[in-house]
Amino acid sequence: MPEISVRGLEMPQSPIRKLAPLANDAKKRGIKVYHLNIGQPDLPTPQCGLDALKNIDRSILEYSPSQGFQSYREKLIPYYKKFNINITPDDIIITTGGSEAVLFAFMACLNPGDEIIVPEPAYANYMAFAISAGAKIRTIATSIEEGFALPRVEQFEKLINEKTRAIMICNPNNPTGYLYTRREMNQIRDLVRKYDLYLFSDEVYREYIYTGSPYISVLNLEGLEDNAVLIDSVSKRYSECGIRVGALITRNPEIRQAVMKFCQARLSPPLLGQIVAEASLDAPEEYYRDVYDEYVERRKTLIDGLNRIPGVYSPIPMGAFYTVAKLPVDDSEKFCRWCLADFNYEGETVMMAPASGFYTTPGAGKNQVRIAYVLKKEDLQRALVVLKKALEQYPGRVDDE
Amino acid sequence: MPEISVRGLEMPQSPIRKLAPLANDAKKRGIKVYHLNIGQPDLPTPQCGLDALKNIDRSILEYSPSQGFQSYREKLIPYYKKFNINITPDDIIITTGGSEAVLFAFMACLNPGDEIIVPEPAYANYMAFAISAGAKIRTIATSIEEGFALPRVEQFEKLINEKTRAIMICNPNNPTGYLYTRREMNQIRDLVRKYDLYLFSDEVYREYIYTGSPYISVLNLEGLEDNAVLIDSVSKRYSECGIRVGALITRNPEIRQAVMKFCQARLSPPLLGQIVAEASLDAPEEYYRDVYDEYVERRKTLIDGLNRIPGVYSPIPMGAFYTVAKLPVDDSEKFCRWCLADFNYEGETVMMAPASGFYTTPGAGKNQVRIAYVLKKEDLQRALVVLKKALEQYPGRVDDE
Repeated sequence: MPEISVRGLEMPQSPIRKLAPLANDAKKRGIKVYHLNIGQPDLPTPQCGLDALKNIDRSILEYSPSQGFQSYREKLIPYYKKFNINITPDDIIITTGGSEAVLFAFMACLNPGDEIIVPEPAYANYMAFAISAGAKIRTIATSIEEGFALPRVEQFEKLINEKTRAIMICNPNNPTGYLYTRREMNQIRDLVRKYDLYLFSDEVYREYIYTGSPYISVLNLEGLEDNAVLIDSVSKRYSECGIRVGALITRNPEIRQAVMKFCQARLSPPLLGQIVAEASLDAPEEYYRDVYDEYVERRKTLIDGLNRIPGVYSPIPMGAFYTVAKLPVDDSEKFCRWCLADFNYEGETVMMAPASGFYTTPGAGKNQVRIAYVLKKEDLQRALVVLKKALEQYPGRVDDE
Repeated sequence: MPEISVRGLEMPQSPIRKLAPLANDAKKRGIKVYHLNIGQPDLPTPQCGLDALKNIDRSILEYSPSQGFQSYREKLIPYYKKFNINITPDDIIITTGGSEAVLFAFMACLNPGDEIIVPEPAYANYMAFAISAGAKIRTIATSIEEGFALPRVEQFEKLINEKTRAIMICNPNNPTGYLYTRREMNQIRDLVRKYDLYLFSDEVYREYIYTGSPYISVLNLEGLEDNAVLIDSVSKRYSECGIRVGALITRNPEIRQAVMKFCQARLSPPLLGQIVAEASLDAPEEYYRDVYDEYVERRKTLIDGLNRIPGVYSPIPMGAFYTVAKLPVDDSEKFCRWCLADFNYEGETVMMAPASGFYTTPGAGKNQVRIAYVLKKEDLQRALVVLKKALEQYPGRVDDE
């Protein structure tokens, strides 16, 4: 047979999804699996979004415009305005999930061999999209001990060379829950201007910020009109991961023009998802508040619970609905596999994402896992009990001195 | 600002969609536009598919599996069996439209610089996906005079070199409506085996074959288990272009394994679209028959009508719902633009896709257009009247000697 492409071989498996076959096997054996691995909220989609589905009155499910429906793009304007993001419908390109927005941003802006600086741990699929585009991720380390704060500007500058073309951040951060401070955002802004880089910012978790600190969008950084690209998605804010509706937003018309060619090639973003997403913008304030309050509660439950398990440490995430926690194990991937394949406590086990997949530095994050707090409080509490038992029984337990 | 990527600059604009702004302007001026440019059928989606939408009883629109729902993949087995394609659910990967299936096939199988041989005229977006993957399309010319039949094997072999990694066909063909014969398919099979190439075959129009000739899927060619990749989509067979559900099917597990990594990176195909597509498999035989009969009628109307306009020539397409026709004009893109910007007949005009966008050979197809017969008979008849008038008035008219 002909050979698989180098890119096809190099593409990482998703650290979030690669253990899914083991989880399926466990379920077949009758074991209940608590899914702490994936950012799939169990909270309901807004009723207005679900109603819009039932009320679709079309006899043909036809293509939508490559850029997305005009009506939807117009309706997004007041939504962004609530976050002081002032844009026009023309600035918005609707994509098939935030995933496609990242891929198209990389495709349109980066040449093969170009480098993107990304603070690690980072959302693993950025690596995958970089490989798809032939670009190279250079990670800048952040540490659990420092709560994943951004390193000083000198650390960035050490990585910058003639191939450096972009910085990519996720804010609030997946997987760490870190929220960039005003000082950090200004530091990034200055770097981007100084070296004339692109700045891609994935801000899909803006609804979930738990401290008094402000959320600073890249679209609010002065002087970055030509450099900043916002990546967005409705997946997390409306519990609509399955409808595959995201957005790429930039004030730079040249980027939009290039991205639109990739959009035309894939014809259109999902019609049905756009209808649901557009209707979901009518969700009442209570919807946002209830969801927010729920996450506040879950965050407290999870983080308190984790830090009470001997040998476990989690910083307190400031946003999103993930945390990266340190476990007393030799290798978190081995541990996660063991939990699914060889362990259960009273017929139950936990599935987590090994954090090594969120790092590119070899060996980094080897005793860390990403945990999503997307399950209801009782399930989280029970999952914590199961995790505690698993850590007690795991043969590869390693305690710090 | 930083530079747009070379790929972003090289990406072609869609010949099908790039004139859309002119069409929108015409509509704003109150002109009715007959859309002959795009393969968006006006026939209804199956009622069972629409009903499934109304009956969705989920409170969370969550991710679906990266490979697509197991239930849907299982239900596809008897569908393919009707066409003598015998596969298992594991062989199928559900994609976000046929577009994503092409992109992922290229990404997983082709290295930057690799060459793919494609008979031209070809579906324009293959070029776009090849550029996305850094691969190079080498086209082999077919001609309107010979009804777009495949050239002899020697013509293919002239193009084959150490960079050649794949052949891509579309059967029945978009844009020409050509259906590959048994002899041609065997010729391609022998080439693929001799040079150990991948064979990608886009067969989304298999329902629409108007001659007694058999449809031969690549999955039915012997000895190509490791080489053949079928690209599919429900867009055309169920008038469901907007739901973005396609498939990549191959018996080669290594290809599937590589493709699945790209699938995991984009998380999942559209949930809602899969629900509709799965339900649409229950469409009664009458649905398929009615749609088929309608296209037979439209094909006759269009092709007869075209060939009756002085100076126009169209071969008789054997499948799909397009034809590539020769017009008595200096430059079909100029003509198509003129139809939208500067012409109307009794308040109406036509939009067609300039065929040059379906060729890579410079100058090829310059007096050709792709016409989709996706409008109802009366509209097609009226569009033919308008086209005839346009050709009479067009300042760039050029008649053959």
